[in-house]
Amino acid sequence: MLSTLDCPQTARARVAGFTTDDVLDAHRGGKLSIELRAPLVDRRDLSMMYTPGVAGVSGLIAREPAAAREYTWASRLVAVVSDGTAVLGLGDIGPKASLPVMEGKSALMRSFAGLDSVPIVLDTTDPDEIVAAVRAIAPSFGAINLEDISAPRCFEVEQRLVQALDIPVMHDDQHGTAVVVLAALMNAASVIRRVMVDLRVVIAGAGAAGIACAKILLAAGVRDLVVLDSKGILSVGRAGLHQVKEQMAASTNPRGLTGGLEQAMAGADVFIGVSGGTVDPALVRTMGPQPIVFALANPEPEIAPQAAAAHGAAVVATGRSDYPNQINNVLAFPGIFLGALDCGATRITEGMKVAAAGAICAAVPGRADADRIVPDPFTPGLARMVADAVTAAAAAEGVSAR
Amino acid sequence: MLSTLDCPQTARARVAGFTTDDVLDAHRGGKLSIELRAPLVDRRDLSMMYTPGVAGVSGLIAREPAAAREYTWASRLVAVVSDGTAVLGLGDIGPKASLPVMEGKSALMRSFAGLDSVPIVLDTTDPDEIVAAVRAIAPSFGAINLEDISAPRCFEVEQRLVQALDIPVMHDDQHGTAVVVLAALMNAASVIRRVMVDLRVVIAGAGAAGIACAKILLAAGVRDLVVLDSKGILSVGRAGLHQVKEQMAASTNPRGLTGGLEQAMAGADVFIGVSGGTVDPALVRTMGPQPIVFALANPEPEIAPQAAAAHGAAVVATGRSDYPNQINNVLAFPGIFLGALDCGATRITEGMKVAAAGAICAAVPGRADADRIVPDPFTPGLARMVADAVTAAAAAEGVSAR
Repeated sequence: MLSTLDCPQTARARVAGFTTDDVLDAHRGGKLSIELRAPLVDRRDLSMMYTPGVAGVSGLIAREPAAAREYTWASRLVAVVSDGTAVLGLGDIGPKASLPVMEGKSALMRSFAGLDSVPIVLDTTDPDEIVAAVRAIAPSFGAINLEDISAPRCFEVEQRLVQALDIPVMHDDQHGTAVVVLAALMNAASVIRRVMVDLRVVIAGAGAAGIACAKILLAAGVRDLVVLDSKGILSVGRAGLHQVKEQMAASTNPRGLTGGLEQAMAGADVFIGVSGGTVDPALVRTMGPQPIVFALANPEPEIAPQAAAAHGAAVVATGRSDYPNQINNVLAFPGIFLGALDCGATRITEGMKVAAAGAICAAVPGRADADRIVPDPFTPGLARMVADAVTAAAAAEGVSAR
Repeated sequence: MLSTLDCPQTARARVAGFTTDDVLDAHRGGKLSIELRAPLVDRRDLSMMYTPGVAGVSGLIAREPAAAREYTWASRLVAVVSDGTAVLGLGDIGPKASLPVMEGKSALMRSFAGLDSVPIVLDTTDPDEIVAAVRAIAPSFGAINLEDISAPRCFEVEQRLVQALDIPVMHDDQHGTAVVVLAALMNAASVIRRVMVDLRVVIAGAGAAGIACAKILLAAGVRDLVVLDSKGILSVGRAGLHQVKEQMAASTNPRGLTGGLEQAMAGADVFIGVSGGTVDPALVRTMGPQPIVFALANPEPEIAPQAAAAHGAAVVATGRSDYPNQINNVLAFPGIFLGALDCGATRITEGMKVAAAGAICAAVPGRADADRIVPDPFTPGLARMVADAVTAAAAAEGVSAR
């Protein structure tokens, strides 16, 4: 009755060792369930967990709000919130179609960090309504993971929620990606025996991921950074720039470049593609010695890894699981939220993200090499290492509750 | 560090066989967790349950929205939504303090009907904002259980959400209570060998539960019904009535009574207290032969059961677990939501509620007697019996999707 799956991802899925039927079977009935932490089997349990017993706990929290942290699940619960407008390679598919992705995100929160999380998909794409809805439901949760909300609305929505709420709010498409890119770049730089601050970096793409990557690289000390959108290099004075891009132009592009990829990539050390477009692999030849290429568009990288290598790239990363060096948010977000919730952080700062990247960078066992600049997501204890780095940074920055 | 629990419920809780520490232990860390329906242990699982595999499922739902029912958890997921304004005997304690109650409700959904549900507590008491927030998050869920929202806002909020959404919305404080009251009254009537349609019924209390009880009794055929609020009998022409009470006055009180409890109870067959006030037990003597007394206020019934019996009551019910005949919503709501979700009902009609009451009434094993007018909540299969009655009624009323 249901038509066959026919998107490019599924063709790749077959290569990865499973069939359409396998995928559908894995999703039948959804991927999550709500369970009781202790069984409810008799009248005594019923009286303790509901009336009359529960009134004692509610009364306690009404008198002493801090007790909510200990006696409800909210303090360890993440809302995975999406409006379904920028879902994987699929784009604006709406809330119901995005729900399997959000359930998947919750599955990763549980599997990789032991965190409870609930997918919340929204029947609105209006920033005012998104902000109002998330503010309204916020007391139910300990943190908000915004997901797959398209740019530029994602910037405004995140900023307004960070200001309005006293719990951590993070748009993972921006910051999860940025954290892993930074971690990967730290190791890639060490592979070619360079230091971050001396690298010339080009970011192709000024959407959610591109802007966040630029910000974290600046926070991590990169000085020569050039960002491009679909119309070319962001530069001061370029007409018609959205406010976010205008601010980015002002804090990057120190040599005042104008033009397109050709101008940006000439002599650059690092190319980071987060655009979804395609890039002529021959441009890799115009980069500096031992160029680093992160072609992160999914499902089709901006430059095919084989082509990048053939044109001289020393280190190549993609967003795909079937090549080495997969830049995968799952390396970052479980540990970031775990750490932020552990310490009762009121927000997630740039310093906490840089600390998370450092932990991920350090989790590569032994010495990083060109095909191993990020750890395996299943590295035991990875989320805990990231979380500990995040809590330490939160304490240092004074955003920790304990 | 935390002060002792000192509300009346806790004093009772000790009687019921547990201590303050037992209750707090049972709530430490919250009562719920999110689990995976199948484990995620390796790269293949990761690729199937998240990228790239999940894109196939999302793409399928984008093309064929009906597939969401099969491949997400939303179609069997209930949101338990509260603004924390009318919580148990505690009143307006706010969202965070109400969360343990909502977690408890979710625990009951799981334990008694196998349903997944998520507590959503709201940082607003404004009906417009509540309606907007619930509309926004609705695609995440299969049904909405409104809970502990104070009257009269609860009527407006429920009515607007029922109209706006194509999934079942039910304010349990109204309808769960009403369904169990009807079930109990059906059995109580049979105990005193009377038929429902000939009973004179008095309802003391015109809040959420009182109005809903009145509506379901009318739907079940009761003809002589008198409803009182704190100022007396609801009668046509009484000044200053809220719209909801005005409508109630118009459809009840066929003998045109005015005055207070004394006037209402004289000669009545049934007293239903859902007011939270106290009633002079001597008034039971003024009722008809073999009077039925449901004194449902918690924690203190309007008339103490012993006093009601001493003044001649033939059948007595309360909201408490330490007396016979506890009118407990848990008898109704798990099965009602199970049935409504099973059949993809777009709303919950009065007929579905009456059907649920019939199933609960019939679930008392053997012949009902004065101390056994409702079944034990732990009766095996009770929720399934209620659900089957609800789905049958939904099909008959044409609100079922299948």
